[in-house]
Amino acid sequence: MTEFQKRLEKTLQNAQEAFVEINTYSIQKRVALMRAVADEIEALGPELIETAKKESNLSEPRLAGEKGRTIFQWRSYAQAVESGYSLDASIDTANAERTPLKPDIRKTNVALGPVAVFGASNFPFAFSTAGGDTASAIAAGCPVVVKAHPGHPETSQIMADAIIRAVEKSGFPSGTFSHIFCETNEEAQALVSHNIIKAVGFTGSNRAGLALVEIASKRPEPIPVFAEMGSINPVFLFPEKLSTSASELAKQYAASLTLGVGQFCTNPGLLISEEGAGLDQFTESLEEEILKALPAFMLNSGIAKGYWSNREKVISQSGVSLLANATAEAEEGQGTATVATVSGLDFLINDDLQQEVFGPFALIVKCRSAEEVYAVASKVHGQLTATLLATTGDIAANQDLVALIQNKCGRIIFNNFPTGVEVCKSMHHGGPFPSSSNSQYTSVGADAIKRFVRPLSFQNWPNEFLPEELKDENPLGIWRMVDNEMSKGAVS
Amino acid sequence: MTEFQKRLEKTLQNAQEAFVEINTYSIQKRVALMRAVADEIEALGPELIETAKKESNLSEPRLAGEKGRTIFQWRSYAQAVESGYSLDASIDTANAERTPLKPDIRKTNVALGPVAVFGASNFPFAFSTAGGDTASAIAAGCPVVVKAHPGHPETSQIMADAIIRAVEKSGFPSGTFSHIFCETNEEAQALVSHNIIKAVGFTGSNRAGLALVEIASKRPEPIPVFAEMGSINPVFLFPEKLSTSASELAKQYAASLTLGVGQFCTNPGLLISEEGAGLDQFTESLEEEILKALPAFMLNSGIAKGYWSNREKVISQSGVSLLANATAEAEEGQGTATVATVSGLDFLINDDLQQEVFGPFALIVKCRSAEEVYAVASKVHGQLTATLLATTGDIAANQDLVALIQNKCGRIIFNNFPTGVEVCKSMHHGGPFPSSSNSQYTSVGADAIKRFVRPLSFQNWPNEFLPEELKDENPLGIWRMVDNEMSKGAVS
Repeated sequence: MTEFQKRLEKTLQNAQEAFVEINTYSIQKRVALMRAVADEIEALGPELIETAKKESNLSEPRLAGEKGRTIFQWRSYAQAVESGYSLDASIDTANAERTPLKPDIRKTNVALGPVAVFGASNFPFAFSTAGGDTASAIAAGCPVVVKAHPGHPETSQIMADAIIRAVEKSGFPSGTFSHIFCETNEEAQALVSHNIIKAVGFTGSNRAGLALVEIASKRPEPIPVFAEMGSINPVFLFPEKLSTSASELAKQYAASLTLGVGQFCTNPGLLISEEGAGLDQFTESLEEEILKALPAFMLNSGIAKGYWSNREKVISQSGVSLLANATAEAEEGQGTATVATVSGLDFLINDDLQQEVFGPFALIVKCRSAEEVYAVASKVHGQLTATLLATTGDIAANQDLVALIQNKCGRIIFNNFPTGVEVCKSMHHGGPFPSSSNSQYTSVGADAIKRFVRPLSFQNWPNEFLPEELKDENPLGIWRMVDNEMSKGAVS
Repeated sequence: MTEFQKRLEKTLQNAQEAFVEINTYSIQKRVALMRAVADEIEALGPELIETAKKESNLSEPRLAGEKGRTIFQWRSYAQAVESGYSLDASIDTANAERTPLKPDIRKTNVALGPVAVFGASNFPFAFSTAGGDTASAIAAGCPVVVKAHPGHPETSQIMADAIIRAVEKSGFPSGTFSHIFCETNEEAQALVSHNIIKAVGFTGSNRAGLALVEIASKRPEPIPVFAEMGSINPVFLFPEKLSTSASELAKQYAASLTLGVGQFCTNPGLLISEEGAGLDQFTESLEEEILKALPAFMLNSGIAKGYWSNREKVISQSGVSLLANATAEAEEGQGTATVATVSGLDFLINDDLQQEVFGPFALIVKCRSAEEVYAVASKVHGQLTATLLATTGDIAANQDLVALIQNKCGRIIFNNFPTGVEVCKSMHHGGPFPSSSNSQYTSVGADAIKRFVRPLSFQNWPNEFLPEELKDENPLGIWRMVDNEMSKGAVS
């Protein structure tokens, strides 16, 4: 055994012991831990943001906002647990008069087991060590083992320490949360392969996500990998809308495209529209905006290198022309906003044009007709989001296209932009493959908790030994499905 | 292209066209189709049961009961759609005063796309052509392509014709439901490999289920396979309970074990207990019951051959002794109840003892101590069900063991038997791997519908174009999560 393997083994044994232990804890105790984590993060001094700024090149206001979002995730997921939302408690009472007699069946959600979390480089707080995957796995009752992100190891350690303090103060076993550093892909893979791990949360590239999915599926006991792998988030520009506000839309679009140097999984990197005067005016205004954009440092040099090489790969494809390229010279490590165009026909025959260019890059697909727009939309891969810049008249006139687009994405947006992912119950952040490995689950919003639970039914179980959420008297006072009706009442 | 490939291609193009079409239909229209299918099945004459009896050797009362269950599945899943239960509608309203301003986000469940269904031999109605997978996929809004089960092709055709009549009468496109015959495994695999298919429902053997999972995971676009692959459903006999009612329990256990010639995925094929006078009395009574059991024809000759060979495989393992073997001679195609015993130690070192023997076979694991019972329980693979024959005193005295068992199964039963799977919202029929390929979903009860949907969020979407279930005025009158509260009200 290598030193890493020994450390991993010990960490996972600890996680397993914690799983057994915390399974016996009350819902209230779990909620208290989550609130304690939020408090610990809130109490962190300026060192947190300074460290993250140094490690990620993200701005202070952006990081301050992200810190708030991270705290909100812990608190709102705690509310989802406390209110019973994440439990889906359900009761079907017995009926002794039916033949055959109907047993008493009750169902709740239980924790899957220890979860491995792989955070993202672009959200060092909200999608990393103390991010949504960790918060939702803890909310589910699962111990968490976080693989520290190599892009922000010190930030990761500060957050890990905050969680560990909350774990101690709340009387949870140490294995409830662990933080490990992996030097190689093999080490990260050993974590996913280990039989104690029962699920994986991942945010990152397609390549890395699919590698984990494959490892997980080849285990003697396959486990789910919830990989959010990003996408190019098509924006559809509709004719009537274009005819009234092309320049304004171009400004808004440029702002969304270049926000945070384009380093969002919801960055709108593909724009699809029918040719015409409206689109000409749009592209003209967009060009102006892009030319004005200043180069900016990306998260790290690897991300910047990836940006330039992926950008080059798309630009060099047949039929692609550069529309606009920010004029200021970029330093090493910086990214520059770039927009290219391609015809609908060229797009239709070349899947490489759908490769994500992580950064402030967009490809505009110019279609000769509404039919070509439909054909292009049909060809588009599964996406986290799709945006319609349209009037209600456009929507009414293009019902087939709108239905097609709905079928390609996890979130469909009307005259708004995909960057900015609201943390709420109605958010779905996940979409058809390849944007995520499992389109049925979200990684943002309280439903993210449901990735790490499975239902368990109790048949004819004595009331005194049922979990609180299923007891006759409804001691938690939660909404439950009782004999096909929602109810907060007791069962007699 | 072979003739089969041409037929398959046409069938799937039809299914895809139907998908696009029925996506535009109202919830009410979908519910009407489901009720029409139930009515068509209800109206089927004696030919249905006669044919199924001939093809499956199942008794008339059993088949009549199964017919009723099948109709109930269609009607209760229709209710789950109509009531909004399967939609999980959720609304978070906008807040223009927040910085950044909060958009309006609404979420509902949408259909995954065309679903392939592979039915089971042991439930020619309830888990086959018109069974739970088909009903729940249609409830989800997905067209269905059923691969006819080779064990009951005529029954399958009668059921398919009933569904097709309902599809026509309800004004749905013909591709809503298709019924195809596959001659080879390769043909069945071609169905799962086809890019139009977006999910698979399967009930059957571990080997066949895992083969489909592998094919689905290797597609360019991987898809979920919900495979319910059966298990050996351990029964734990606790000391205090044994001391009071060993003989009675043995009789009940024998009845559950031999019900339907043991041909249930929930057949209690493993019994685990501590040695002692109680267990001796139990096994003595069990032996008497088993010796009295008559051989009976199994579903078909393949199933019977499998039974005898798998039974032999377990019996021939080191340390296994025969406890009881029904005395009457079995004809070819019949199965005979058999019970064998093995020590806890031998069980712990031999995974082959956990192979399912599909039929009336049980293995009793005799443990020398409570610690050995715990060790054996730790070793048990994932199961659909686990049964505790216990007093409340036994439960109180064995909390660690009970927690361990809960973690191994999808349904935990107290002083009742696992055969007989109630169709209700609180039922979970699915368990940790390898009992099913995905422990997070059930194949029985209205939650089965959720296997075939994915969430879709609408951001700032015009009310007039939202699906009915998300419109401000709540025209369906369903329960919705509105700004973190359950409500049947309108949104202003």
